[in-house]
Amino acid sequence: MRSDDLRIVSTDHGPIVETSVWVRFAETDAMGVVYHAHYIVWFEVGRGAYWRALNLGQVHSLRDAGAFPVASVEARYHAPARYGDRVLIRTRIVAIRSRSVTFAYECLDEAGTRLVTGQTTHLFLDPSGHAVRLPDAVRRALMGEAQS
Amino acid sequence: MRSDDLRIVSTDHGPIVETSVWVRFAETDAMGVVYHAHYIVWFEVGRGAYWRALNLGQVHSLRDAGAFPVASVEARYHAPARYGDRVLIRTRIVAIRSRSVTFAYECLDEAGTRLVTGQTTHLFLDPSGHAVRLPDAVRRALMGEAQS
Amino acid sequence: MRSDDLRIVSTDHGPIVETSVWVRFAETDAMGVVYHAHYIVWFEVGRGAYWRALNLGQVHSLRDAGAFPVASVEARYHAPARYGDRVLIRTRIVAIRSRSVTFAYECLDEAGTRLVTGQTTHLFLDPSGHAVRLPDAVRRALMGEAQS
Amino acid sequence: MRSDDLRIVSTDHGPIVETSVWVRFAETDAMGVVYHAHYIVWFEVGRGAYWRALNLGQVHSLRDAGAFPVASVEARYHAPARYGDRVLIRTRIVAIRSRSVTFAYECLDEAGTRLVTGQTTHLFLDPSGHAVRLPDAVRRALMGEAQS
Repeated sequence: MRSDDLRIVSTDHGPIVETSVWVRFAETDAMGVVYHAHYIVWFEVGRGAYWRALNLGQVHSLRDAGAFPVASVEARYHAPARYGDRVLIRTRIVAIRSRSVTFAYECLDEAGTRLVTGQTTHLFLDPSGHAVRLPDAVRRALMGEAQS
Repeated sequence: MRSDDLRIVSTDHGPIVETSVWVRFAETDAMGVVYHAHYIVWFEVGRGAYWRALNLGQVHSLRDAGAFPVASVEARYHAPARYGDRVLIRTRIVAIRSRSVTFAYECLDEAGTRLVTGQTTHLFLDPSGHAVRLPDAVRRALMGEAQS
Repeated sequence: MRSDDLRIVSTDHGPIVETSVWVRFAETDAMGVVYHAHYIVWFEVGRGAYWRALNLGQVHSLRDAGAFPVASVEARYHAPARYGDRVLIRTRIVAIRSRSVTFAYECLDEAGTRLVTGQTTHLFLDPSGHAVRLPDAVRRALMGEAQS
Repeated sequence: MRSDDLRIVSTDHGPIVETSVWVRFAETDAMGVVYHAHYIVWFEVGRGAYWRALNLGQVHSLRDAGAFPVASVEARYHAPARYGDRVLIRTRIVAIRSRSVTFAYECLDEAGTRLVTGQTTHLFLDPSGHAVRLPDAVRRALMGEAQS
């Protein structure tokens, strides 16, 4: 566990990065549970943790240039989270294609129950904003192969 | 066009309900465009317009009891919206199964360009919170068949 | 009433601009009412309506350059709004000082009950990002004096 | 520092509770900085940390019954936060009156620069929803006097 609440699990299929969030009252809705769109934001939190965990400095700067916009998102809702819960977010890469990267997410409660699962697919844009092939260096960094 | 900015288009496959939103500065992100999770909220805006347009009073009360929770969502991002844009949201039902309903959404800019498309699937829960078969009256109301 | 749901009321103290929002389920919280921070976003909606209503094209472009950042905000909560309510937002300018502008807001329900009142104060920055005196042309435009 | 990223600082004027958040991309706006309304949410994060830090179990259950609604909020913006920043939130109680409690907040960056300061005032409602005098036990708990 790192000081900023990140944990990296190495697997044969690449790293899984774990972080967590406390459910904010702002994230609940009138049904008394977390509003469904906020899990999409938590996916972003998981993705940010993934970048930080792998020290993707170079890739990070590419992203800051708008290089990894979201092309699609999907989520499945299994069980609700409530105010004050601590939710674990597990993030990994499940596909790297020539022009896109797909992240997968699991949101779990503290007992390990799956709350929400989902994926986001991101294009890779060059600095001029065109979708281009993913450079090999970026591909390796994303899979944690460049990690010292 | 109704006074509350709704329009119903009748088709052979059921009604399409249109409404629109102005993009709020709160909905933009540091890339200068609408943050991707906000389209999921706009899908909810479209769904609410669908309920209002079809005068789904009875069904509405069921929903208020928590009867139509989101089971899954998916979205594809085609082009970005920006601050101050007016975005048209077109909502229709694309599938009614024994225990779930699937809504489809199109977000378009004022020139008619598709920005984001997506779907949400909702379970039907009875007042005690169990997933049950969709009553026939609800099914007909959802397809606009009960509309006078 | 303009086509985009704006109304301008002329008063001895300058224009009041009215617009409205439907409460989104995303804006409710587990107490069953609108979460308090969303009214701050509605203040922004009111301010945007003010700009559009007065056709503040020139000033608008200044704002897009980051010219009117929020320096302070305050809100008082009188009564709650709920999902599906239509909320009227009334926006006016209550103070123009040499280097700042203060907007005041009232959020009302359809019966005219005050829900939330508040103010935001904005600095005026020149294109290089320095707080500077408000140009006279901007001052007059803000008060609706340049409106044809 | 506790496991859930809380720190309690004892002072002559009662406890100060510190926690922190990572800025989410969802919280930025098209000016490239954190949208002003999100600090109001961070105030709630600070307040939640205050409750957790002081083990306000009994009081917490009162709050869950809707016992501490926000009556007013104010914020002053000194400097912007940006995506990826870690923001420290310091929360303390600055006034306990017969029927209300006022929390004060400071948001600081990692260098200690003040970003935003603010206050929220909360009424105390009994279970039937009426504003009543704050019970002495609640008052003492809020000031950390009941803390073992």
